[in-house]
Amino acid sequence: MESGHHYPGGDVSAVNDIEGILNLHPTVNKFATFKPTVVSKKDKEHWKKNERCKTACELKNDFSDVKPTTLTERGALFEAQRCLKCADAPCQKSCPTQLDVKSFISSIATKNYYGAAKAIFSDNPVGLTCGMVCPVSNLCEGGCNLASTEEGAIKIGGLQQYATDVFKKMNIPQIRDPSLTPLDQLPESYRAKIALIGCGPTSISCGTFLARLGYTDVTIFEKEEYVGGLSSAEIPQYRLPFDVVEFEVKLMKDLGVKVVYGKKLGDNGFTVESLKAQGYEAVYLGIGMPEAKIDKVFQGLTVAEGFYTSKDYLPLVSKGSKPGMCGCSSKLPELRGRVVVLGAGDTAFDCATSAFRCGASRVTVCFRRGFSDMRAVPEEVDIAKDERCEFLPFVLPKQVIRREGKIVALEFYKTEKGEDGQYAVDEDQFFRVKCDYIISAFGSQIGEVAESCKPLKFTRHGLADVDQMTMQATNQEWLFCGGDLIGNGTTVEAVNDGKTASWNIHKYLQSLHGIPIPDSPQLPNFFTPIDLVDISIDFCGLKFENPFGLASATPCTSASMIRRSFEQGWGFAVTKTFSLDKDLVTNVSPRIVRGTTSGHHFGPGQGAFLNIELISEKTCHYWCKAVTELKRDFPSKIVIASIMCGFNKDDWQELAKMAEASGADALELNLSCPHGMGERGMGLACGQNPDLVLHICKWVREAIKIPFFAKLTPNVTEVKEIAMAAHTGGASGVTAINTVSGLMSLKGDSNAWPAIGSEKRTTYGGVSGNATRPMALRAVSSIRRALPDFPIMATGGADSADTCIQFLHCGAGVIQICSAVQNQDFTVVQDYITGLKTYLYMQSREDLLQWDGQSPPLSLTSWASRKKYNNLPRFGNYQKERNQQEFAENQTLDLQAKPVVPEAAPQTKPVPSVHDQVNRAIPRIGVYNDLNNKEQVVALIDEDLCINCGKCYMTCNDSGYTAIKFDAKTHIPNVTDNCTGCNLCLSVCPIIDCITMVPRKIPYIPQRGLVPA
Amino acid sequence: MESGHHYPGGDVSAVNDIEGILNLHPTVNKFATFKPTVVSKKDKEHWKKNERCKTACELKNDFSDVKPTTLTERGALFEAQRCLKCADAPCQKSCPTQLDVKSFISSIATKNYYGAAKAIFSDNPVGLTCGMVCPVSNLCEGGCNLASTEEGAIKIGGLQQYATDVFKKMNIPQIRDPSLTPLDQLPESYRAKIALIGCGPTSISCGTFLARLGYTDVTIFEKEEYVGGLSSAEIPQYRLPFDVVEFEVKLMKDLGVKVVYGKKLGDNGFTVESLKAQGYEAVYLGIGMPEAKIDKVFQGLTVAEGFYTSKDYLPLVSKGSKPGMCGCSSKLPELRGRVVVLGAGDTAFDCATSAFRCGASRVTVCFRRGFSDMRAVPEEVDIAKDERCEFLPFVLPKQVIRREGKIVALEFYKTEKGEDGQYAVDEDQFFRVKCDYIISAFGSQIGEVAESCKPLKFTRHGLADVDQMTMQATNQEWLFCGGDLIGNGTTVEAVNDGKTASWNIHKYLQSLHGIPIPDSPQLPNFFTPIDLVDISIDFCGLKFENPFGLASATPCTSASMIRRSFEQGWGFAVTKTFSLDKDLVTNVSPRIVRGTTSGHHFGPGQGAFLNIELISEKTCHYWCKAVTELKRDFPSKIVIASIMCGFNKDDWQELAKMAEASGADALELNLSCPHGMGERGMGLACGQNPDLVLHICKWVREAIKIPFFAKLTPNVTEVKEIAMAAHTGGASGVTAINTVSGLMSLKGDSNAWPAIGSEKRTTYGGVSGNATRPMALRAVSSIRRALPDFPIMATGGADSADTCIQFLHCGAGVIQICSAVQNQDFTVVQDYITGLKTYLYMQSREDLLQWDGQSPPLSLTSWASRKKYNNLPRFGNYQKERNQQEFAENQTLDLQAKPVVPEAAPQTKPVPSVHDQVNRAIPRIGVYNDLNNKEQVVALIDEDLCINCGKCYMTCNDSGYTAIKFDAKTHIPNVTDNCTGCNLCLSVCPIIDCITMVPRKIPYIPQRGLVPA
Repeated sequence: MESGHHYPGGDVSAVNDIEGILNLHPTVNKFATFKPTVVSKKDKEHWKKNERCKTACELKNDFSDVKPTTLTERGALFEAQRCLKCADAPCQKSCPTQLDVKSFISSIATKNYYGAAKAIFSDNPVGLTCGMVCPVSNLCEGGCNLASTEEGAIKIGGLQQYATDVFKKMNIPQIRDPSLTPLDQLPESYRAKIALIGCGPTSISCGTFLARLGYTDVTIFEKEEYVGGLSSAEIPQYRLPFDVVEFEVKLMKDLGVKVVYGKKLGDNGFTVESLKAQGYEAVYLGIGMPEAKIDKVFQGLTVAEGFYTSKDYLPLVSKGSKPGMCGCSSKLPELRGRVVVLGAGDTAFDCATSAFRCGASRVTVCFRRGFSDMRAVPEEVDIAKDERCEFLPFVLPKQVIRREGKIVALEFYKTEKGEDGQYAVDEDQFFRVKCDYIISAFGSQIGEVAESCKPLKFTRHGLADVDQMTMQATNQEWLFCGGDLIGNGTTVEAVNDGKTASWNIHKYLQSLHGIPIPDSPQLPNFFTPIDLVDISIDFCGLKFENPFGLASATPCTSASMIRRSFEQGWGFAVTKTFSLDKDLVTNVSPRIVRGTTSGHHFGPGQGAFLNIELISEKTCHYWCKAVTELKRDFPSKIVIASIMCGFNKDDWQELAKMAEASGADALELNLSCPHGMGERGMGLACGQNPDLVLHICKWVREAIKIPFFAKLTPNVTEVKEIAMAAHTGGASGVTAINTVSGLMSLKGDSNAWPAIGSEKRTTYGGVSGNATRPMALRAVSSIRRALPDFPIMATGGADSADTCIQFLHCGAGVIQICSAVQNQDFTVVQDYITGLKTYLYMQSREDLLQWDGQSPPLSLTSWASRKKYNNLPRFGNYQKERNQQEFAENQTLDLQAKPVVPEAAPQTKPVPSVHDQVNRAIPRIGVYNDLNNKEQVVALIDEDLCINCGKCYMTCNDSGYTAIKFDAKTHIPNVTDNCTGCNLCLSVCPIIDCITMVPRKIPYIPQRGLVPA
Repeated sequence: MESGHHYPGGDVSAVNDIEGILNLHPTVNKFATFKPTVVSKKDKEHWKKNERCKTACELKNDFSDVKPTTLTERGALFEAQRCLKCADAPCQKSCPTQLDVKSFISSIATKNYYGAAKAIFSDNPVGLTCGMVCPVSNLCEGGCNLASTEEGAIKIGGLQQYATDVFKKMNIPQIRDPSLTPLDQLPESYRAKIALIGCGPTSISCGTFLARLGYTDVTIFEKEEYVGGLSSAEIPQYRLPFDVVEFEVKLMKDLGVKVVYGKKLGDNGFTVESLKAQGYEAVYLGIGMPEAKIDKVFQGLTVAEGFYTSKDYLPLVSKGSKPGMCGCSSKLPELRGRVVVLGAGDTAFDCATSAFRCGASRVTVCFRRGFSDMRAVPEEVDIAKDERCEFLPFVLPKQVIRREGKIVALEFYKTEKGEDGQYAVDEDQFFRVKCDYIISAFGSQIGEVAESCKPLKFTRHGLADVDQMTMQATNQEWLFCGGDLIGNGTTVEAVNDGKTASWNIHKYLQSLHGIPIPDSPQLPNFFTPIDLVDISIDFCGLKFENPFGLASATPCTSASMIRRSFEQGWGFAVTKTFSLDKDLVTNVSPRIVRGTTSGHHFGPGQGAFLNIELISEKTCHYWCKAVTELKRDFPSKIVIASIMCGFNKDDWQELAKMAEASGADALELNLSCPHGMGERGMGLACGQNPDLVLHICKWVREAIKIPFFAKLTPNVTEVKEIAMAAHTGGASGVTAINTVSGLMSLKGDSNAWPAIGSEKRTTYGGVSGNATRPMALRAVSSIRRALPDFPIMATGGADSADTCIQFLHCGAGVIQICSAVQNQDFTVVQDYITGLKTYLYMQSREDLLQWDGQSPPLSLTSWASRKKYNNLPRFGNYQKERNQQEFAENQTLDLQAKPVVPEAAPQTKPVPSVHDQVNRAIPRIGVYNDLNNKEQVVALIDEDLCINCGKCYMTCNDSGYTAIKFDAKTHIPNVTDNCTGCNLCLSVCPIIDCITMVPRKIPYIPQRGLVPA
């Protein structure tokens, strides 16, 4: 009978007969479980999920991603929402480029990936590379305040990578800040010839900032035929793919920076001085340290014998494995047997993990010091450890043992760390380690190219002699250096040196022309055509520069707060509600509590708040003066005065006139405060009754000329009826919705929170925030459907560009925000601004229309390109089988096959206006009977994305149609014909896009159960 | 003017003048940031938060917690909510004791820590110890499905530790399952004498299960004067405090198991055979491996010379550092200088980290194999690494070098791993490592005690020769062994061996008496007096065995689902709403979507759902037959039939009579479905109008005798008026609330979700789940206040015992649940049952009344006992200063001072009934004007708990009163006199209890701003 099956006995409540479907379903344990240890020891191997790393032999030719930091959208959203977005955030302070981490993570949390990428590239033109290769535990993540909790630091590197990678997929060029003086109006000094030597991160950064400043003749001279410097040549593909580097260089080229290839210092008379002679007014040296340091023990050894330096070896690996890097069809160096890598810096670990991929069966990293003094960051060491790399500390090479022209062993001295922390070599103690190859990664040096850097001086440590505050050579005003050359070895430091140099080059060049520049550096931010999008809207006869405003609530507690909000970019503000002096209020405390609607969540990102705060404690005189001053100082901003009176014509007219006289652009009549004021016959006491609303609106309409809005309470049966009354009364529009009346929670002692005074009394308060958004979206759209042309200001759980756009689509013209600011601060408006601009921009591009907001479609994710390997689960022996299949495929791969880079599609349609967005959803919102119950859907599970949790199976059993089977051994779910497409499985599935609903192929016939004979 | 300050110029909107208060507040970046690398390199050291480990010299005498897995409540809730609660969960399958991990984590997520502890101790009587010491990465966490995502596996060990530790603080004894045959009615066979040898984890487990089964003469013979075996003697205090072991032994003793101290096998003729001779019918050997294995290189070396085995060394450390373990005032072994630890198992790492605490300045762990073949689990190795322990792989001891009777160095052979993976010693290669002490941790063996184990045989590997499926000796039916003795070396394996043995001992003993026992093991679960609490309630003349029922919704889609729910423990169920045949419906699909009210959250734990599902598609005949059968098969359960008709007397009476005739205990009239049905003049179309409700109730009252409830919609202005109409109409009570009408969200293309058919149309749906709870709590309490005696069934976001109790306090008698089941499965009811029982039990104990639900007060957390060290922040140099202060204090600590264990307080009051909880909150819920605005509060920040994020500072600036200063260097916030006690800072603070609201000392005077002259 269930699901179409009939029991012979006719028991309608008999257990569903689908054989075995429920056998893995949870039941209450009547007894303790029982399984001998010997059995579970074996079982657990079947279920093992945390041994994902391949063995050495499985890694051969595998140059796919092993970055421990990269994230998918699920991971990025999880981390971004976990981030506290701290004040004066130490992550930012710990980043060499001082990246505004808090700000970019805020944007990721709202799915505004362009907003995040803009923040990143503004401070770091090599932001995607850095997201992938930065030693974050010693930088941003090292300062994360959440390191003080058990959750640990935020994965900042991964977030940076995710956002910039999504932006990369958007294919959008960089442009110069449109608010700066146009290039053709800049003085001659900006046309100075500037040479940057070496196209690595430091020059890319320097060149980008110089171009942003307005320099039009910037040339990078690169010795190779490819860009990227060390990023390309010495960081393996699986840590930094070549197309990332190309992308960042392309962004720089968008600004007009030129790259000349095959120009190597020292070749054909190309020197720093020759550039000077050719009229380059400033030269930036970002050539790194081009030569390997070689211990005397290895002098004269050759590749044929089995000896490499990292500087020989890594570029060979890159050339052989980076698609598109060089047209040289170079082969990977082939290693066999045992490899010894010398050194314990990050480069040594790149050599070690590369060695496996070139065929080594065993790799041992050998180093002079102990583990606790190792130079490499833990995240680098951990990758190598996971791949079963070996380590040999406390050793120093003594001699190489060769046999028949091949290396067979390396003899080491033993080192020891003394009580003083110094390492000493004991020359009496030595031993041999058998090996077939030696890769020396003992660091690098300037080498013979130093000669061509003249007049640059070098310090006794072999570093370029520069002022570390300016990057300027100590002996030459026109010569600047950065990166490895001055001892700043990480990519991000090199980037920052380029940034620092750019300003000082600017300062120097302008000084040549006697043009003053500001004392405080003003390096321009990152811009794209997205930033040109107009998001202003004409609404109710008023021009809003953007549709984002502060609601009449805590963020508008004082006039100075509104002032500060305008400075951060808010388009409008509604004052906190004020009344006539006779109605002045005094608050109780505590009065605002966090929501409990999103579980036991502590910290920002609260999904709801409840408040029992009254209207402003300040007088109407204060507020009217405030409005006057705000309009005087911010004439382009819209200031709306929120007022409240009892049901008294004279009061409403007096206060409305006073507010109009203050210069307010419009008024908002607060007819909806759900707590406290109602008892005085104000707020919701008026707003729940259409008649009272009609009268109040009529009175106000009589008294003033400027527009006014009635702010509606959702605590009514039909909000649209109240809106219609306001409309009839002459209101210019409505604001929907005020807070929802509620009681947030009780503590264990049955006292509510907030509990007031020693009696611990409480009253119903107003719930705000995301928990109320479904009601707000409904209210806005239902008013719109009832009154097609009536202006609506939306409020209620708007916390992002994304949610604000939903309100626009439902009929709102502008949106008011409060709870999201309570969770953070006024700067969030910038996230909404970039988010809305991006949304509008994307609609001008055909190729971006399949995105959901800024979320790329599944076809553009890294999952899309993966092989499915018969949908083997990712645990135990299945994982091993997967590894073998991947291995087999890797052996036949053409590693150099150039990836297909999609062409940037042109903007084929005009960018729509904000106004075009208003009402877009309305035609498809209607009554239930208009829904089509002939076109039904069923669930489809992507077995490869599935993580085998069985959530779909459980919810289908206990809240659905027992329509999903769950395999006892593979834990792969399987949707049966009983699926009715209810969508619960998708609703609880933890993996984005793993379950989709697809059209049902055969007609849906409901299971009616018993039908009387 | 702001905050009481007046500007000379009189600008009311001028920036707040509190000097510098805003200087750290976020503002939008107009330019890229600028800071030379050399400066930020230095700055980042100031902010470093992730170097919390002390240096070797700072660790001396520091035996405070370094367990990487333990959690605070914040961490536990975070992890528990993150857990997916998988079907057929692999974590459970990977645990030797097959602990129901999913179930205990579910209970932690609802703050039902007793429920979690009960699940844990049911399967593992040493559950707290295991939570602390289990090598989880190779057990439960190794199988976690979330290992497939970037978030990584759940911290299961920490969760286990947290819940059981909270239970430990509750001071509640263990009792035997009250549903089993009482001890005095069990046959003689249960009084068999059973001896367990060695009071370590395996015997504690075996003894506990034997006592749970009903054996009354179980004795553990322990050679030492303290309990715990290896847990006490060889696991250091900072990994496993002694009071934890004592606590678990006490739980065992609660069941009557005896412990005899100072009985060592071999001493005074005490042998296994002597026990047999004394009439012990079964003997369990859980003595571990008592002797150290010593390499011949070390033969004859003494402690005086500087040589220890782990078996000498670790017990000395334990005795010297474990408060309460032995009355011996033993001193810590004092080490100085360089220590070499030999071996790479977990014991070696305990030796290494202990060595620092005993004064070693450098510790090197030396081992034969490479890192990739190390035996210890990564979590153990990582602790040592973090403490700057050194490692020397590929070495084998050759000889010890002594000078003047002291060890000065250890000479090693070099080992090498061959292509075959085998390690070989190269006898020609050796070198010395200087050291002052050697600790050998080369494993252990049975040694001379084997003689006293006769007739036990040992295998050629030196293990007890047992059947690994039963723990029974292969040559003696009465003799059983487990743990280390049979090669199961981890604590949790030993525990499981004891558990396995207990059943087989039971089987053996009963077989002696010819008493059959079940084939399938039935080991009893863990019980305490909490489980005796009665949670039944008489409600509306019906007896509910517990107040938890399924709402008329998806979990009641079919009769078989209700049947299964009853089997899992639900007290009642309301059928999915059915109608007369003429009103039969057909659903559309998709029709249930996840909420967006809790952010971008994917997976279970959704804070809301929205559905456009109609009433049941099945006929009334199906449902009436279902009710009849359910009542027949589950007579103690309450079955309520939910019905719906249009506004038609005959229809309502016909259907109501049919439902009554089916045998339903009561009816629920669905007057509130917010979507679809209204268009047919049903559901909410009736329920929004008090007149219609009154009539329908009258009709139904006329037609039937059994109780009926009107299910109310919240989509009205005053729900209590509808309730009053139902009351007047003769309803027995009401159900509040049905779902809230809403529109959940739109996608980027402006289509709503759910979107139906190719036209992608939608309609407003019903929002359910936690997002609606504030409205439901308000509705229930407001109906209660209006109608003091009218029965209310609550529904709307009840997802835990905790929230159900809130509904009781607001006036509900029983509670209906749906969304929480959608998120999980029917077994959640057990969590609610134990949670409610615990709540009621705790009220009988004066000492537990200060707890908030099951959350211990701050005074009982680990934070409470900590020294505050001048509230130094936990980063950079401040952390170092902290370390130094802690170090200084540690040198003067009396490590053996016995901790004050609080006496278990008696139950001084009767356990209240569920009925006693109903209405408890009502007297303190009232109108705003009753709130006391004279008793105000202000915020108080605990600087030591503070993690320096500045969330309080930001929200106070942009949504409050600019009343918090934030120190630029320490990042410690400071509340100023401007605080108005609004509570926003507490609402967004990420750390539980870090901010509290305390009474304001001076009267509150509102800042009115401008007052007219």
